[in-house]
Amino acid sequence: MQSNRPLGVAIVGHSFMGRAHSQGWRNVASVFDVPAFERTVLVGRDPDRAREAAAGLGWSDSSADWRAAVTRDDVDIVDICAPGMLHAEIAVAALRAGKHVLVEKPLANTLAEAEEMASVAESAAVRGQIAMVGFNYRRMPALALARSMIADGRIGAPAQMRVAYYQDWLSDPTAAMSWRLRKEQAGSGALGDLGSHAVDQVRFLLGDDVESVSARMRTFTSRRPGPHGLEDVTVDDAAWATLVTDGGTVASIEVSRVTTGRKNALQIEVYGDGGSLRFDLERPNELWFHDAGLPAAEQGERRILVTEPEHPYLDGWWPQGHVLGWEHTFTHEVRDLLFGAADHTNPAPSFADGLAVQQVLDAIEVSDQKQNQTIDIRGV
Amino acid sequence: MQSNRPLGVAIVGHSFMGRAHSQGWRNVASVFDVPAFERTVLVGRDPDRAREAAAGLGWSDSSADWRAAVTRDDVDIVDICAPGMLHAEIAVAALRAGKHVLVEKPLANTLAEAEEMASVAESAAVRGQIAMVGFNYRRMPALALARSMIADGRIGAPAQMRVAYYQDWLSDPTAAMSWRLRKEQAGSGALGDLGSHAVDQVRFLLGDDVESVSARMRTFTSRRPGPHGLEDVTVDDAAWATLVTDGGTVASIEVSRVTTGRKNALQIEVYGDGGSLRFDLERPNELWFHDAGLPAAEQGERRILVTEPEHPYLDGWWPQGHVLGWEHTFTHEVRDLLFGAADHTNPAPSFADGLAVQQVLDAIEVSDQKQNQTIDIRGV
Amino acid sequence: MQSNRPLGVAIVGHSFMGRAHSQGWRNVASVFDVPAFERTVLVGRDPDRAREAAAGLGWSDSSADWRAAVTRDDVDIVDICAPGMLHAEIAVAALRAGKHVLVEKPLANTLAEAEEMASVAESAAVRGQIAMVGFNYRRMPALALARSMIADGRIGAPAQMRVAYYQDWLSDPTAAMSWRLRKEQAGSGALGDLGSHAVDQVRFLLGDDVESVSARMRTFTSRRPGPHGLEDVTVDDAAWATLVTDGGTVASIEVSRVTTGRKNALQIEVYGDGGSLRFDLERPNELWFHDAGLPAAEQGERRILVTEPEHPYLDGWWPQGHVLGWEHTFTHEVRDLLFGAADHTNPAPSFADGLAVQQVLDAIEVSDQKQNQTIDIRGV
Amino acid sequence: MQSNRPLGVAIVGHSFMGRAHSQGWRNVASVFDVPAFERTVLVGRDPDRAREAAAGLGWSDSSADWRAAVTRDDVDIVDICAPGMLHAEIAVAALRAGKHVLVEKPLANTLAEAEEMASVAESAAVRGQIAMVGFNYRRMPALALARSMIADGRIGAPAQMRVAYYQDWLSDPTAAMSWRLRKEQAGSGALGDLGSHAVDQVRFLLGDDVESVSARMRTFTSRRPGPHGLEDVTVDDAAWATLVTDGGTVASIEVSRVTTGRKNALQIEVYGDGGSLRFDLERPNELWFHDAGLPAAEQGERRILVTEPEHPYLDGWWPQGHVLGWEHTFTHEVRDLLFGAADHTNPAPSFADGLAVQQVLDAIEVSDQKQNQTIDIRGV
Repeated sequence: MQSNRPLGVAIVGHSFMGRAHSQGWRNVASVFDVPAFERTVLVGRDPDRAREAAAGLGWSDSSADWRAAVTRDDVDIVDICAPGMLHAEIAVAALRAGKHVLVEKPLANTLAEAEEMASVAESAAVRGQIAMVGFNYRRMPALALARSMIADGRIGAPAQMRVAYYQDWLSDPTAAMSWRLRKEQAGSGALGDLGSHAVDQVRFLLGDDVESVSARMRTFTSRRPGPHGLEDVTVDDAAWATLVTDGGTVASIEVSRVTTGRKNALQIEVYGDGGSLRFDLERPNELWFHDAGLPAAEQGERRILVTEPEHPYLDGWWPQGHVLGWEHTFTHEVRDLLFGAADHTNPAPSFADGLAVQQVLDAIEVSDQKQNQTIDIRGV
Repeated sequence: MQSNRPLGVAIVGHSFMGRAHSQGWRNVASVFDVPAFERTVLVGRDPDRAREAAAGLGWSDSSADWRAAVTRDDVDIVDICAPGMLHAEIAVAALRAGKHVLVEKPLANTLAEAEEMASVAESAAVRGQIAMVGFNYRRMPALALARSMIADGRIGAPAQMRVAYYQDWLSDPTAAMSWRLRKEQAGSGALGDLGSHAVDQVRFLLGDDVESVSARMRTFTSRRPGPHGLEDVTVDDAAWATLVTDGGTVASIEVSRVTTGRKNALQIEVYGDGGSLRFDLERPNELWFHDAGLPAAEQGERRILVTEPEHPYLDGWWPQGHVLGWEHTFTHEVRDLLFGAADHTNPAPSFADGLAVQQVLDAIEVSDQKQNQTIDIRGV
Repeated sequence: MQSNRPLGVAIVGHSFMGRAHSQGWRNVASVFDVPAFERTVLVGRDPDRAREAAAGLGWSDSSADWRAAVTRDDVDIVDICAPGMLHAEIAVAALRAGKHVLVEKPLANTLAEAEEMASVAESAAVRGQIAMVGFNYRRMPALALARSMIADGRIGAPAQMRVAYYQDWLSDPTAAMSWRLRKEQAGSGALGDLGSHAVDQVRFLLGDDVESVSARMRTFTSRRPGPHGLEDVTVDDAAWATLVTDGGTVASIEVSRVTTGRKNALQIEVYGDGGSLRFDLERPNELWFHDAGLPAAEQGERRILVTEPEHPYLDGWWPQGHVLGWEHTFTHEVRDLLFGAADHTNPAPSFADGLAVQQVLDAIEVSDQKQNQTIDIRGV
Repeated sequence: MQSNRPLGVAIVGHSFMGRAHSQGWRNVASVFDVPAFERTVLVGRDPDRAREAAAGLGWSDSSADWRAAVTRDDVDIVDICAPGMLHAEIAVAALRAGKHVLVEKPLANTLAEAEEMASVAESAAVRGQIAMVGFNYRRMPALALARSMIADGRIGAPAQMRVAYYQDWLSDPTAAMSWRLRKEQAGSGALGDLGSHAVDQVRFLLGDDVESVSARMRTFTSRRPGPHGLEDVTVDDAAWATLVTDGGTVASIEVSRVTTGRKNALQIEVYGDGGSLRFDLERPNELWFHDAGLPAAEQGERRILVTEPEHPYLDGWWPQGHVLGWEHTFTHEVRDLLFGAADHTNPAPSFADGLAVQQVLDAIEVSDQKQNQTIDIRGV
């Protein structure tokens, strides 16, 4: 790869995730003292729109040919924000071309694709290549703090965990059909989109693997209006699961796109025998901590405003109390990716982590089909 | 039964629930314009302690013989706050003696007992007798308001519901063994104690029956120190279930006694296609309501402080903003019982409701034993 | 006074405050192990309504002659819930008759009356008589806890304090005229009603006296509809003040009856150099505590749910998490009064405390008339 | 000024505010469809550090000569983030050179400077030049929404308002002396720094001018350790004021740097006769709204999550629920500045607005010196 020149970055995709990742790339060097890099090229399906997006989002060049772009000599890092069904093909090509790769979550639409990607990434790792999956909430300062507090034993041994991820943009039963509601294109519904974050947080916060799963899925509105009349919705509106980890924790998961009034509520609770932690993505700068080691009369759940220089990622930003937003997770993600690429050390979550999440999602679907019966996760 | 004299009330038990019910009986006539009644007799196992409790809690007489007390001529209502394993015997005796009966929840320790009680109550109803089970949270004003708002369609068709009931008095793995942790005495652990309230709220708030259940139970600390060394804990610390109702709603339930930092957190959320409602027993005077019918720019979850004269039960109490506490549910419970006894109309929840809850709890245990498989509720 | 017989109690008044105090008297002996007492007589202006109130609220006898009632031989304690303009006359008569006295707040309508009452109480104290003023919020467990934490140095030296007391029953400018809005009957508006609690909390929580005051008052709606047309409102809707205490703390006070959406929001914040405390009467079971002595990364304001047996007054009530309501302050008030009467030790707040509050309220009115200029409190 | 080429921008300063404004300039064109512009030059006192800052923050050129930089032909807009004592000189030079100007708040350190600046800006306006002061919180979406809701009558006629701005970085009485605590350099303490925002919000949200002021200031820690021993602190730690506006609203203001536990808490409440609004900068994506026009049983303060496309500035950002942070106010500020510069229409707040705030701050200091007496604002 590159010797002394800055790392070249290619981004594939410029819709929602492409814009959010670009925000990260645009700002990371002004906030953190990262290795030098260049925003080399943005890839989009339509040449004109790609050109316009590159100009608007701050990329030097544009391309409508992802295969050519991700194998360019001046590209060292490929950031894949394309739809999930393209993840595997692009990531494998980029890794085989010797590039570092960041793939937006979930890793892939199918378990088979995820397995292939993880396998290719494993080989690439030998050559010092990074393969990272974009579970960006790991880099929300409050959740990074939660992880380190749990690892440090601040809540004792975790017994129970709860992760809900609630949105409501499908609450209205008359809302229109879209590609996101067709299984062949989207893979799954709330499960893959929101449940993948939920499962990743279980693994991230506890540092555990998931051993078994019991689950239920539900589509509340089974037909929605398309341009030519009512169409079948073939993905889930909501899913529920209980997971048992190899550390003995039971985690309850609930994800939904029809929980009216919740806009982007990733709600996490972890209960240990020495304390508990709580987080809500709608108030992302706050981590709630109950310390059962304090005197009984003074115990209480406390709101840590995660904006101190002592907190993860905060030293690069503003003075205390000057809160960050949702998008800053991407700045942190590309920061860590850049350090990883420079050091040839893979920052978590790796493709292996992405695959582990996929295995759990797959088991959830199987359990749902088998009367919610407990399913062991293969390979654990 | 009685003609013109006040209704005579006997209460059985004077520990936690006996004290709480007594608080209700002591105050109800000062707050609401209820039918005349007398606090006739308090029953306790030990004659001396019963006498002292009767004096302290405001009962005219005391007795150590429940059978004699509940059949006294001057007793019309029997309020059973004895341990769960005695519910069936006392309730059946009182009903057969022609008395109105209130039984503290859960209805019984076993399904067989619950079935017998419901059957006897059904016969007694023909004679105008009331048989009520003490799911007191139905009479928390905020939850009574929630019920009426759902019935009035204020959140549209309920799709999802969440009920968590969190306590933490068993978080500490070194806490001592007690009778509450032995299955033969307590029936079950968090499931019967907290889960019965949770299931009752599903039925109450939705007005639905539960059709099927998938569930998991867990004992995190399996041995605890007793007076003679470590003993086996034979009940659950926590339980999880998803319930499907005959109205098509999916309700997720989680109950636990090891959720550190939660003291008495019965947390309820109901999501409909037109809005949502949320409640937390640790802030019992508040009901949170999201109305999806408002203009998008002004929508938000709103905190209804349920202390207005327009709210259920509030007209008897204080001016707005002067909040009530946990115990007031019992005042409301005996209020409705008294009106029911006078009118010979059974206030909900009836013994049939108590039995329905018991059937769900039983199915949860079966599902847990069968790898969390979905269990149909018998008889629905 | 009484030798071996129970203490006899007379209550004067049976509207809002009379009902609330009665609730306290009715329950205190079932919750706390208090000295024996009897609810001897209730006094009301109208004999029939007094008789009915006595029966409903649980008093043995009734009377329409307060002078006769408060001097009865079988009465030892007089609880005065009559309108403010009668406080002085009744309290002085009762004290002169050798009775213990509890007067609902504020102590009196005028400073002159308050001074007389404090003087008579001082003489009575020599004879072992109790004279207490009913600032009930001192006995809200969360505020009692706050007081002891401040005294114990848990927030270091208090620099700033904020007390707002917000209600909204006069927000609507078309709401009707009433006696509460006429200065000659009510004394003042929000200032006396709500401001007296606010000033008492400054003195109570800090343990300080107030040295000087700068203040502003405002009547937003100056005429309101009476039965015979528009009438002048002669009391304040809202008042603002800054107080400087002899401990060097600056306290900002704001009271209002037109703060739309706030129903009974006594909001208190105390900031010391080692931490801070916060309270809101609409969530009375919670005390928020920030401990600046913890490591920076773990600091945060914590919600102490004040329902533990370690908390003030809580050992008599329910298990943890089973919250109390507004009225319980009265149970605690009469509890402490009973112990005081038995011990001949005056529980705070004394009439001298009531007078001190009155002096501050008086200075607030003077400052408002003098262009908000700082006024020194006389006699401090 | 410029014809067809992009607008050239110079920024003066690269510490806290220079970094925050740069974040705005760096991202605005990727989020909003703004007029074309270039980040031409960054000015700093030290040439090396300026060069490094320009590279890091994304400016094409750097300079250590502000006078030369702000008069460059290729510069059309001057963004002044230098210390307050330089505001007047730089702004006047830039305006006289025909440039548009944005000055960070407060407008100036002295009233005389502010008056000169407003006067020069008035002349420049005739030539189509923009002069804007950087009260960035006007462009926090939740506060922009609040302003439009008040203007639309959604809370009726505002009676009372409360603005507190709490920080705590001076809570510790042993914290070190710094230039910010010397009057000759900093102008004032909490008053100028935090109070200027507070006063601006009163004017902004109500659309009113301030007519009179009563105020108190306090320095709790009067000496702090400097490099050569204890030094006198000559600015305020905290200030309190009540303001009366020409619309008849009374606004209470409290600002402090010693309110332990509050990190950046700009807390705003506005109470009208038809509703109320509430905001806290520590949760900046939320606006709380109480609508008194709803049925009493359903009223409550509601949390509007201000992330909908219908909300101010939100159409350029992320989907609903994906919250923004503190810094985004600067992106919005430069957005509006660019549109203003292109249209030759001055976006509020103008220098005249900045002067009006300064007049209030000045009156607060005078009132504090005159025993808190009410001071009329000159020229209103």
